[in-house]
Amino acid sequence: MALIVQKYGGTSMGTPERILNVSRRVKRWHDHGHQVVVVVSAMSGETNRLIGLAKAISETPDPRELDQMLATGEQVTIAMLAMSLKSIGLNAKSYTGGQVVIRTDSSFNKARIQSIDESAVRKDLDAGSVVIVAGFQGIDDDGNVTTLGRGGSDTTGVAMAAALKADECQIYTDVDGVYTTDPRVAPKAKKLDRITFEEMLEMASLGSKVLQIRSVEFAGKYQVPLRVLSSFDNENDGAYDDDFKHNVGTLITTESETTMEQPIISGIAFNRDEAKLIVRGVPDQPGIASRILSPVGDANIEIDMIVQNVAADGTTDFTFTVNRSDYKKTLDLMQQIGRDVGAREVTGDDTIVKVSIVGVGMRSHAGVASQMFRTLGAEGINIQMISTSEIKISVVVNEKYLELAVRALHTAFELDRVTGESRAQA
Amino acid sequence: MALIVQKYGGTSMGTPERILNVSRRVKRWHDHGHQVVVVVSAMSGETNRLIGLAKAISETPDPRELDQMLATGEQVTIAMLAMSLKSIGLNAKSYTGGQVVIRTDSSFNKARIQSIDESAVRKDLDAGSVVIVAGFQGIDDDGNVTTLGRGGSDTTGVAMAAALKADECQIYTDVDGVYTTDPRVAPKAKKLDRITFEEMLEMASLGSKVLQIRSVEFAGKYQVPLRVLSSFDNENDGAYDDDFKHNVGTLITTESETTMEQPIISGIAFNRDEAKLIVRGVPDQPGIASRILSPVGDANIEIDMIVQNVAADGTTDFTFTVNRSDYKKTLDLMQQIGRDVGAREVTGDDTIVKVSIVGVGMRSHAGVASQMFRTLGAEGINIQMISTSEIKISVVVNEKYLELAVRALHTAFELDRVTGESRAQA
Repeated sequence: MALIVQKYGGTSMGTPERILNVSRRVKRWHDHGHQVVVVVSAMSGETNRLIGLAKAISETPDPRELDQMLATGEQVTIAMLAMSLKSIGLNAKSYTGGQVVIRTDSSFNKARIQSIDESAVRKDLDAGSVVIVAGFQGIDDDGNVTTLGRGGSDTTGVAMAAALKADECQIYTDVDGVYTTDPRVAPKAKKLDRITFEEMLEMASLGSKVLQIRSVEFAGKYQVPLRVLSSFDNENDGAYDDDFKHNVGTLITTESETTMEQPIISGIAFNRDEAKLIVRGVPDQPGIASRILSPVGDANIEIDMIVQNVAADGTTDFTFTVNRSDYKKTLDLMQQIGRDVGAREVTGDDTIVKVSIVGVGMRSHAGVASQMFRTLGAEGINIQMISTSEIKISVVVNEKYLELAVRALHTAFELDRVTGESRAQA
Repeated sequence: MALIVQKYGGTSMGTPERILNVSRRVKRWHDHGHQVVVVVSAMSGETNRLIGLAKAISETPDPRELDQMLATGEQVTIAMLAMSLKSIGLNAKSYTGGQVVIRTDSSFNKARIQSIDESAVRKDLDAGSVVIVAGFQGIDDDGNVTTLGRGGSDTTGVAMAAALKADECQIYTDVDGVYTTDPRVAPKAKKLDRITFEEMLEMASLGSKVLQIRSVEFAGKYQVPLRVLSSFDNENDGAYDDDFKHNVGTLITTESETTMEQPIISGIAFNRDEAKLIVRGVPDQPGIASRILSPVGDANIEIDMIVQNVAADGTTDFTFTVNRSDYKKTLDLMQQIGRDVGAREVTGDDTIVKVSIVGVGMRSHAGVASQMFRTLGAEGINIQMISTSEIKISVVVNEKYLELAVRALHTAFELDRVTGESRAQA
């Protein structure tokens, strides 16, 4: 018997019929003798409908009141799922974030979980009930309702799993796991049976949409086994055996549990929403980086990669990337700052993309970077920027090379050959 | 400076524009220096939409989970109103029933308020904030969300006013007060400036839809001055002076505060949703009433009037009325019971109505009943049943006489001459 936390998103909660489907899945797990906690999102579209109502009242709705309002989306779906489970013969009880209690700080709209009192939930589980918890929400010390921000239901799922020391937190999605890269770009992309928290974090921050970064961070911090799996597949329901543990979906886990036969890199991520700014010929003085880049942060523009080169003539060049939607605004800002600091030239380019290889294997394998650059060079792809971390290498290239670069790297790093079977046996 | 509790229904909360109208009214009261607590219902249609979702899951949704769900309707409107008030420059804070705390018993879907902790609300009021409270909901000792049943927002308004010892609880509606009778039936109907709790209770239970019975009971019990007034009239906003207190809307108050010139009766109520059942020739034995009537209650059918006559032959006849929608079901049940108890005949009639005169004045005036019967007789209206209480007399007549009876009684008891002006001066 295991304690399983399952998280279902808004699409799975979208209609009474789909909620009944979720109920049947929960029942199959429960019938196998497992204790089940279900964390749910609002019905798809509901959060946006509520935001629309708020915006009709005020362009900048009061943050506390917005959370008071948004939290109702999940309060409706937890009740619907509990009704549905009862209608097929299970004991079930719904909990809002406040009822659990999921205690957060008071940062409305983007609150962070501080503690969870799991005692009431555990009592219900021990009495044979399925417990349903509203995702995305909590309560602060003063009893105000808070929300965790977009994607916060994943975080609630992981946090509940951590508090309950669950055997596994299962995130049900419309894909059957994490892939070596996006199959729409590289048809040879393969599902990964396992990936480390660190790799998953890099994949998420580099553009993979499967999991929210915060939930992966949380899972890593509290060592919660986290599995991404398909909400369309039923055949493995409840069979929490070795075969399930090794093959179903993708398990995000600690490095020590991955195999010896770990490939050098686990996946290739990319991000099309990039634009770069170049400030050339700036006097190379202490504090110049701050004078150029601080105003960007002050304008609430997030900077991604930053590269600085010093020229022989005592000047320096800065290149950095921002989200493509911030490009025009950033370029205007830079042209003004460029004049202030005496830059020779300010230019930009919003036809670039970022391609990254990710893998804990590169820690112990030399030459990964040079193999990446050699592969891209062989395809005639010019590299415009490079940024590295311990387990990832990112390059900026012209957007026209995106698919070519991803496929070439996928083949070069032998990801075409990764299969669920081979990795499971390793 | 007064402390005013205002209650707005679902129509007033129906759109962002209407919510802005409510905000402006609240601001006018606040600008006059009054402390204002606003109790609101869900947006019109929202509670039915949620019930529809629940019914799509299960024909008999779990009561706890239904309340968990239904309470979200008001949680959305309190947040919207708070946002709206803030957008026009007021400090405002919304409270769910649980946040107040409004403590109820655990009778889901029809919970009763047990206590209110008004301290947090009072603190906000004293700090200059407008406080917005979700109607219709509370929380039980175990932290479960409860709802008070249909019309429960009026009860929340009165209960908050009682807990805060408010100067007045104002119920904003689509009519400008309580009338001597329904103006659609008797065009000479007049608005009453004042009516006692007891009279209002009788009016409500006899079919007047202006206020929920429970809220009037509550107001009477805790001596909360309760005023029904129009949400379309703005000119008196904030002017809580003698002129306002005597003339605006209808004040429901204690008998001692009504005037010497109190007319004998205050109003005429009627109810079209009536049907009667007659069980004739039953052996007149101890316990026979219970044998006939208990199965009706057991079938969840509410009995209104009951009349019993004993005949000379040792048998007895029972006549009672039920809601017209229960007529067929009750008739079927009675035919079976009639056979069991050896009744001579079971018949019924669903073409009847009930007409009632209400007034505390009849306590001190003899001959009110006979004047009523004489008036109806003069119009050729046959009386089928009579039921009396200390301050009301009800008769059952054929439905075709409804308008005639109401108008004749309205004239006979001099209600045609009641006017706001004359009564205000009295």
